[in-house]
Amino acid sequence: MPIYQAPLRDYQFILSELLNIYQQTDLRGFDEIDADLTDAILQGVADFTTDIMLPLNASGDLEGCKLVDGKVITPKGFKQAYKQYVEDGWATLTCDPEFGGQGLPEVIGTFATEMKTATNMAFAMYPGLTHGAYSAIHVHGSDALKQKYLAKLVSGEWTGTMNLTESHAGTDLALLRTKAVPAGDELFAISGEKIFISSGDHDLADNIIHLVLARLPDAPEGVKGISLFAVPKFLVNADGSLGAANTLSATGLEHKMGIHGNSTCVMHFDGAIGELVGAPHQGLKAMFTMMNQARLGVGIQGLGVSDIAYQNALVYAKERIQGRALSGVKQPEQAADSLLVHGDVRRMLLSQKSFNEGTRALMGQQALWLDEAERHTDAAKAKQASALAALFTPIVKGFVTDQGFKACVDAQQVYGGHGYINEWGMEQFVRDIRIAMIYEGTNGVQALDLVGRKLLADKGAALTLWSGMVKELVQQHATNEAMKPYLAGLMDAAGDLEKATGFIVQSASKNPDLIGAASMAYMQLFGICALAWMWTRIAATSLAAIEAGTEETSFYQAKLKTAQFFMSYWGSQTRSLRKQIESSSADIVDFAEADF
Amino acid sequence: MPIYQAPLRDYQFILSELLNIYQQTDLRGFDEIDADLTDAILQGVADFTTDIMLPLNASGDLEGCKLVDGKVITPKGFKQAYKQYVEDGWATLTCDPEFGGQGLPEVIGTFATEMKTATNMAFAMYPGLTHGAYSAIHVHGSDALKQKYLAKLVSGEWTGTMNLTESHAGTDLALLRTKAVPAGDELFAISGEKIFISSGDHDLADNIIHLVLARLPDAPEGVKGISLFAVPKFLVNADGSLGAANTLSATGLEHKMGIHGNSTCVMHFDGAIGELVGAPHQGLKAMFTMMNQARLGVGIQGLGVSDIAYQNALVYAKERIQGRALSGVKQPEQAADSLLVHGDVRRMLLSQKSFNEGTRALMGQQALWLDEAERHTDAAKAKQASALAALFTPIVKGFVTDQGFKACVDAQQVYGGHGYINEWGMEQFVRDIRIAMIYEGTNGVQALDLVGRKLLADKGAALTLWSGMVKELVQQHATNEAMKPYLAGLMDAAGDLEKATGFIVQSASKNPDLIGAASMAYMQLFGICALAWMWTRIAATSLAAIEAGTEETSFYQAKLKTAQFFMSYWGSQTRSLRKQIESSSADIVDFAEADF
Repeated sequence: MPIYQAPLRDYQFILSELLNIYQQTDLRGFDEIDADLTDAILQGVADFTTDIMLPLNASGDLEGCKLVDGKVITPKGFKQAYKQYVEDGWATLTCDPEFGGQGLPEVIGTFATEMKTATNMAFAMYPGLTHGAYSAIHVHGSDALKQKYLAKLVSGEWTGTMNLTESHAGTDLALLRTKAVPAGDELFAISGEKIFISSGDHDLADNIIHLVLARLPDAPEGVKGISLFAVPKFLVNADGSLGAANTLSATGLEHKMGIHGNSTCVMHFDGAIGELVGAPHQGLKAMFTMMNQARLGVGIQGLGVSDIAYQNALVYAKERIQGRALSGVKQPEQAADSLLVHGDVRRMLLSQKSFNEGTRALMGQQALWLDEAERHTDAAKAKQASALAALFTPIVKGFVTDQGFKACVDAQQVYGGHGYINEWGMEQFVRDIRIAMIYEGTNGVQALDLVGRKLLADKGAALTLWSGMVKELVQQHATNEAMKPYLAGLMDAAGDLEKATGFIVQSASKNPDLIGAASMAYMQLFGICALAWMWTRIAATSLAAIEAGTEETSFYQAKLKTAQFFMSYWGSQTRSLRKQIESSSADIVDFAEADF
Repeated sequence: MPIYQAPLRDYQFILSELLNIYQQTDLRGFDEIDADLTDAILQGVADFTTDIMLPLNASGDLEGCKLVDGKVITPKGFKQAYKQYVEDGWATLTCDPEFGGQGLPEVIGTFATEMKTATNMAFAMYPGLTHGAYSAIHVHGSDALKQKYLAKLVSGEWTGTMNLTESHAGTDLALLRTKAVPAGDELFAISGEKIFISSGDHDLADNIIHLVLARLPDAPEGVKGISLFAVPKFLVNADGSLGAANTLSATGLEHKMGIHGNSTCVMHFDGAIGELVGAPHQGLKAMFTMMNQARLGVGIQGLGVSDIAYQNALVYAKERIQGRALSGVKQPEQAADSLLVHGDVRRMLLSQKSFNEGTRALMGQQALWLDEAERHTDAAKAKQASALAALFTPIVKGFVTDQGFKACVDAQQVYGGHGYINEWGMEQFVRDIRIAMIYEGTNGVQALDLVGRKLLADKGAALTLWSGMVKELVQQHATNEAMKPYLAGLMDAAGDLEKATGFIVQSASKNPDLIGAASMAYMQLFGICALAWMWTRIAATSLAAIEAGTEETSFYQAKLKTAQFFMSYWGSQTRSLRKQIESSSADIVDFAEADF
C-alpha cells in the first residue's frame, strides 16, 4: 500500500516564512491564528488523512460505488470514516463561524485539502462538493435559505452537489434544458436530467442539497437565462427535521476511468421542489463567483496526488536495486545499485519534486490572495488581490492539473512493470487524477479563460500588476550575488512570457482564433513563469534563513538545489513554448476541415 | 463503440510512393510482391480487424481474463475470433515459407500489425508474442527444435510467450534466478517463478511454447550466464502429437491498468522439461537478436492505438457542438459550433494527426531497413540497413510510445467528461497503451540504449550514416522553392540534434552519468528529427505527385499542410530539448540523495 508523509514542514515554511501569514495584520481574523494553532490543525488533518482516509483509497477504487434500488452505496469503510470526519470537525475549518465554522483562512484550508486529496481523492470529493454548495448558498442565498441549510452543510451532516452538466451541454451551458416552473410560495418544480454529478447520491449523510442550474419559463435564451436552485434530496420541515423524499433520484452511476470511490451519478429531477439561490437568470453568475475557489480546489488535487505519487516513487527508487550506475558501481555491497543512481530516474523524480514544492508555494499564494480579497481592511488591496487570484485561477487549475498528471505518469514509470499493476497503487493515481484535467472546465477552457477573460478583458491590468511584482522581486535581490542564478532563470522565463503576451495581444485584433490556437502553450508558459517566481522567492527566503544561522541548513540547502534544478530543467521549456505560439498558431487556424 | 477506418490509402502512399517497395529489386523476394497483392492482403487484414477484433475490444476490457482451476479463460468471443484468425492465415504473413509462412516482407507485416493493435491491442498480443517465440526458434533453434515447433507457431495453432522477468529482476536480467538442470537427452528441468508473462496461459490454442531465460548449474554470474529454453505447456511426442502436461502453470493473473483481454500471468516452473535454444549461456544474445523487431512491434502499438484514438476524437470534434468560434459564429444553423472550430481542439488533433502519419512513414522505413538487413543482395548495404535499424530501434519504441500515449491522452481530452467514461472507449485506449512505455525495456532504458549503445558504442557510425542521408535529402531539393519551408524545419531540428550529440559525446569521457541524465531529452529530440526527416520526404513526394498531375490533389495537399504544421508545432520543441540537455544534466547528476 502506498505510504504518505504529510508535508508539514513545507507547510510551516510556506505559511510562516514565505507568506508570513502570522504578520498579516491587515487581514481580518488573521490575528486569531498563530503557528501553534496552525500546526495543531494541520497535524490533526495529517493524522486523520493518513490513518483513516489513506487505507480506504485502494479498496474504494477496487470496490467502487453501487446503485442498489435507486440508492448509492459507497465502498466499505467510507461511511464510518465520513462519520468520524464530521465528528472531528474537519468539515468546518474555513466556514463562517455564524453557522458553526471555524473561520480559518483559505491559506490553511487549502493545505488541509491537499492532504485529503493526496490520501483519498474520491473520498475527499464528498466534502469538496459540499463546500461548493455551502459557498453558493453562503454568498448568494437568502437568509431563510442560509438558516435552512448552512449549519448542516458546515458540520458535514448534510452534503452538497453541483448539478450543471447535461448530456448535450458540458462546457457550453447555454445549451442546457432543465426546467424550473414556479410552484407557489417561492418554490419551484425542477425537471430534467443531469450527468456527471459527483457525489450525486450516497449513504454518507442524511440529506443531500443539490445546487441545480435550470431555466425559468420566462428565461431569455443562452447563458443569461439560467437560474440556480437549491434542491434537497429530502424536503426540510420548518423545524429543520427531514420531511418527504423529493422527486429526484440517481438513475445511473457512471463507469469511469478512476475516482471509483466517488459516486458520479446521472440525476433525474421530476418536478423536484427547490428554491432559488440568488436572483432569477443570474445562476451562472452565482456559480462563477465561486469559480476561483472551486478551481483552486481542483488544482490542489493535481498537487496532492502528484505529491503522494512522488513520495512513493522516491521510496521505490531508493529501495529497488536494478542495474549499475553508468559511472561505475555505487553500492558494491548490493547485487545492483538502487534506481536512484540512474540519471533518467533522477530526472523524473526531480521534475516531480520541483513541480510539487513550487506548486505548493503557488497554491499558498493563491489562497492568500483569496483571503486578502475577502479580508483585507484596505479595499484597494482587496481588489488587487482579487484580480491576481482571478488571473492565476486558470494557472492553478489548468497548468497544475496538466503537469500534475504528467508527474503521476512519471512516478508510475519509476516503478517499471510494477507501476502498471493495481496492487502497487501507482496506476490508480494516474487514473484518478486524469479527471482533474477535465472537470470544473477542461484545461482547454482554462487556457481560453486565461487569454480571453483574464488577459485581454481587463486590458492586461492584472498581468501588469503581477509583472510589477516580478520586477520588484528582481530589483530587491539584484545586488545579491547568491541570488543571481535564480534571478536569471526568472527573467529568462518572464522575457518569453512577455513576448508571447505580445503575440496574444496583437492576435486579438487581427484574428481572435489565433488566441485559441495559442492558448494552451501560453498557459503552460505562464505556469512555468509562475513557478519560477515562487522558486525565486523560496531561494531568497532560504538564503536568508541560512544567513541568519538556521540549524536546519539541510532543509534550506535542498530548497536551493531544487530551485536551481527548476530553473535549468523547467526553465528550458519556455523558449519552445513561445516559439510554438509564434510559429504554429496560424497553421492551426488555417488548416481546412477537409484536410483533417 | 469506437469506429476504425484502416488507413489503407496511407499504406499505399508509403509503400508505393514514399518507399518504392515495388522497385526494390535488390531485395530477395520483393520481386514476388506487387501493389495488387499488397492491397488485397492489407484489405483482408482491415476487414478482419474491423469486423472481428474491434467489436471484442471493449468487452474484452470489461470482462478480462479469469484464472479458474489453474487455467486461464479469455474473454467471451476471443476463442472464436482467434480460431478464425488462424484459419484465415493471418498469423503466417511474414513467416518462413519452409514452415508454412507466406514470406512477406516486414514492411507489409508491420502495417498488418498496426491494424491489429489499433482495433484490439490485448488480442493482438497473443499472436504478437507467438511471433517472438517463432523468431527466437527460427534464428537460434536447432533443426530438431524447428521441426518440432515452427509449423504450429507459424500457423498459430500453438502460441508462444517470452519468460524473462522475475519479481526482483526486471530491467536488470543479471539478477535472475530461474534454474535449468540437465535432465538427460539434451533436455533440461526448469524451475523458478516468472512474472508479467503476457499470454502466459489461455484457452485459445492447444499448446503454448514458453521461451524461458534460466541459469545452467555451471553458469557464470550475471548476464553472461543466462540461457534460453523452449518449454512447452504440453510435451510434444516424436510424431508431433501432444503428450503429458509439463510441470508448469499459471499461478496468478496480474491485475493491471489495462490490456485486460490479455492474460498477464505469474508462471511457476517446477522442473518443467525444456530444450536449449541456441548455445548455453548465450540466452540474452538470442533474445536480443530479436529486439529490433520486437521493439518495432511495441512502437507499432503506440502508433496503432494513437491512430484509432485520433480517428474517434476527430469524429467527435466534428459532431459535437459546443460553444462558438472566437472569431464569431461559424455554423449559424446549429445551436452551437462544432468542437473543431476551437483552436485548442484543432491543436490537439493536428498534433495527433501529424505525429501518426509521420510515425507511420517512419515505421515503414524502419521495417524496410529490417527487410534490407535480411534480404539485400549486397552484404554491405544489408549491414548498413542493420545499423540504421539498430540506431532507430529506441526511437520507434521509446519516442513513439511516449508520444503515442500523450496523443491518446489528448484524444481523450477532446471528449471532455465523456472521455473519462468507459462506454466511449477513449479511456481504455489510454489505459491500454500506457504499458507500451514500460514493457520490452522501459522508455528510460530505450533512451539509454540510444545514447549508450547506439550512439557511442559504434563511435557514431550509424548516426553519421543517417546524417548523411539527411544532408543528401536537403541537397537534393535545395533548389526547389516549394520545398524550402520543409527543408528549413528539418535543418533547424537537425542542428539542435547535432549540438545535443556533441554534449553527449563530450560527457561520455567527462562523466558518464551525465549521459543518463540527458538521455530522455535526447531521445525525444532525435524522434522529432526523425519525423521531420520523414515529413520532408513526404512533402517532396507529394509535391512531385501534384506536379505530375495527380487527380488526388486533396490527398497530397493535406500531406503538405500537415507537414507544414509538423515543422511549426513539433519543430518548435527541439530548441528547448537541447537547452534542457545542456543546462540541466549536471544538476540532475549532482543532486544529493539526502536532498530528495
